Amino acid sequence: MGGGPDLPFRNGVSKEKEFVLCALPWPEEQASRGIKALKEAFDDVKVEYYHSKFENGKAELVDVPEESIRRADYLATLFWLPESPSDIPSAKLIQFYSAGTNHVANHPIYTGSKIPLCSANGVHGPQIAEWVIMMDLVHSHSYTKLYENQKRKVWDQKVGMNVSDRVGKRVGILGYGSIGRQVAHVAKAMGMDVIAYTASPRKTPESKHDNGYIVPGTGDPDGSIPSAWYSGTNKEDIHEFLKQEIDLLVVSVPLTKATTNLLSTPEFELLHKSNPKGTYVANIARGQIIDQKALITALEEKHISGAALDVTDPEPLPKDDPLWDAPNVLITPHCSGSSDVYADRAFQVLIENIKRHRSGGKLINEVNRGRGY
Amino acid sequence: MGGGPDLPFRNGVSKEKEFVLCALPWPEEQASRGIKALKEAFDDVKVEYYHSKFENGKAELVDVPEESIRRADYLATLFWLPESPSDIPSAKLIQFYSAGTNHVANHPIYTGSKIPLCSANGVHGPQIAEWVIMMDLVHSHSYTKLYENQKRKVWDQKVGMNVSDRVGKRVGILGYGSIGRQVAHVAKAMGMDVIAYTASPRKTPESKHDNGYIVPGTGDPDGSIPSAWYSGTNKEDIHEFLKQEIDLLVVSVPLTKATTNLLSTPEFELLHKSNPKGTYVANIARGQIIDQKALITALEEKHISGAALDVTDPEPLPKDDPLWDAPNVLITPHCSGSSDVYADRAFQVLIENIKRHRSGGKLINEVNRGRGY
Repeated sequence: MGGGPDLPFRNGVSKEKEFVLCALPWPEEQASRGIKALKEAFDDVKVEYYHSKFENGKAELVDVPEESIRRADYLATLFWLPESPSDIPSAKLIQFYSAGTNHVANHPIYTGSKIPLCSANGVHGPQIAEWVIMMDLVHSHSYTKLYENQKRKVWDQKVGMNVSDRVGKRVGILGYGSIGRQVAHVAKAMGMDVIAYTASPRKTPESKHDNGYIVPGTGDPDGSIPSAWYSGTNKEDIHEFLKQEIDLLVVSVPLTKATTNLLSTPEFELLHKSNPKGTYVANIARGQIIDQKALITALEEKHISGAALDVTDPEPLPKDDPLWDAPNVLITPHCSGSSDVYADRAFQVLIENIKRHRSGGKLINEVNRGRGY
Repeated sequence: MGGGPDLPFRNGVSKEKEFVLCALPWPEEQASRGIKALKEAFDDVKVEYYHSKFENGKAELVDVPEESIRRADYLATLFWLPESPSDIPSAKLIQFYSAGTNHVANHPIYTGSKIPLCSANGVHGPQIAEWVIMMDLVHSHSYTKLYENQKRKVWDQKVGMNVSDRVGKRVGILGYGSIGRQVAHVAKAMGMDVIAYTASPRKTPESKHDNGYIVPGTGDPDGSIPSAWYSGTNKEDIHEFLKQEIDLLVVSVPLTKATTNLLSTPEFELLHKSNPKGTYVANIARGQIIDQKALITALEEKHISGAALDVTDPEPLPKDDPLWDAPNVLITPHCSGSSDVYADRAFQVLIENIKRHRSGGKLINEVNRGRGY
């Protein structure tokens, strides 16, 4: 892993190899497929891998020589950053392996440098879409009841005879990003109608495109799946969307001031009025987007048919929180983004961004520091 | 609902209306959408609806005048049949609302008449595919563990961090009929590779078509989804298919002498050798297709990663059957075909078949009495 002068290139032109510093929380062997892919993509990069730890509220990088930081052309990181931009003078690009960069928004490299920062937005699409589809099916096929019967060795067909299959049902996707697009892709294959909502209008075909990282074969790259696309940032706009007889509402917007408590009593009442059979609400974004008290009331009064929540407010959800006891709620501990190929996919984003940086192309997932994502 | 002469047609030609006799197990109101669709499709048919019961091993039709049976042009039934072909002399077509007709294979109308018999094959595709996808996700996302934690109000992220998402995984579909094709459709949208197996080879594009009833927007009508298509009827053919590193094996072949115990110890060993991480086996066909003792051993020895079974041998599965206690098995009580729109879809098949009968076209799902399905 040492430095030193590089051998002349195959084409005879002597050139210093570019250098990728990886500061990642996984054991190196867990990242080995990604490192291999990186080396295969470029025969002119060097890679050093260091283990980053997050302890006592502080990110640390273990055993990294200062020289390696100083010489890094590209930094691949989940949360660790050098203390100041001057520590990393050669940096051409910092590739975060997280979907967002909120966690470093006050760091001097974020606030006081122009080093391009890119997120790994897109790497969660498939697994979180699977979680949404699974939960909607667990609900609509009464699976937890079937599972309880299995544990008691009870064969009771009646429990499984109340299925309302997904064909012709409508999924409304609040926030049509990489996750929402893959939910749309699978839901459409199941025969569902898809409608989308985004803050900004997407009137032209070009504006509907997904310009972020897309796991090959998944998502909705050109945005052609939704039968209708709603947009706007005020209550009336959201309400118009919620009035569309939605059977499954997928909450996949980023948490901002505008989306905090976006779904509260009036919204649950609208859903109920528009679809008296009951909308099923799945939240894989952030707990704070839903007014949790209003959610509990909506569940108790059957204004919605149920909720699947991978995120709550707060997290972990305290043992005495009444949400645990609300009817028809399924809760998982903010784990839907997990996947054993997470790191592999993030390396793919890095590879693509090194290529684009070199060719002067538009980077993928580049963070707009002003907008905050 | 009485008979009597009909009014002249709008075009002035007096014509006796054709007559559809429904002998179905649901309350009439549950079939009301289907009856409405039937009447809307043809302004020249009359419909009478009678409730059929299955009690003490015998199908009965409640309060039906003999005259109605005698005059029926089309019979829509799940299990009831008149005693002999001579009771139903006008019958042009008998539309079964079940996927198969095995249950009447010894009936005089089956053995001693040439009245065309049609099944409702295809109406189960979406809901059973949903069951397969749900079970594969429940397994791969460790959902039952997450659910147990929810019940104890435990927030433990580790339990949800072991996800192997479906992108790039391979589903092998043993029996590429309407159910298998819709599993393929959804699995492909999830990023999976699909391989198919059928007894007869499907070398030409035409031979790959699904000629049965297809719920609109679902399935694989032209058979273009599989990346490879295996076929044959002997052990070597099946084994060649099972060697393809299958992650999810969907058992969706009809039960015949040839498919009884189709999957036994050698087959589970092949799966294990080809995919040491472990194939997940989903059976939605018939319990007898899997050698259940061999399955239990394969589960205990981790030769497969688990099994999801909607069918067992026998059914109901007795309380003391060791299958209940096998590791990594999920059992549901033969309910995966249930759907609240089951009857609606079966009426669609009937409507299509009346149209085809009238126009002299090839009927949909016509049973080949010699072949038995």
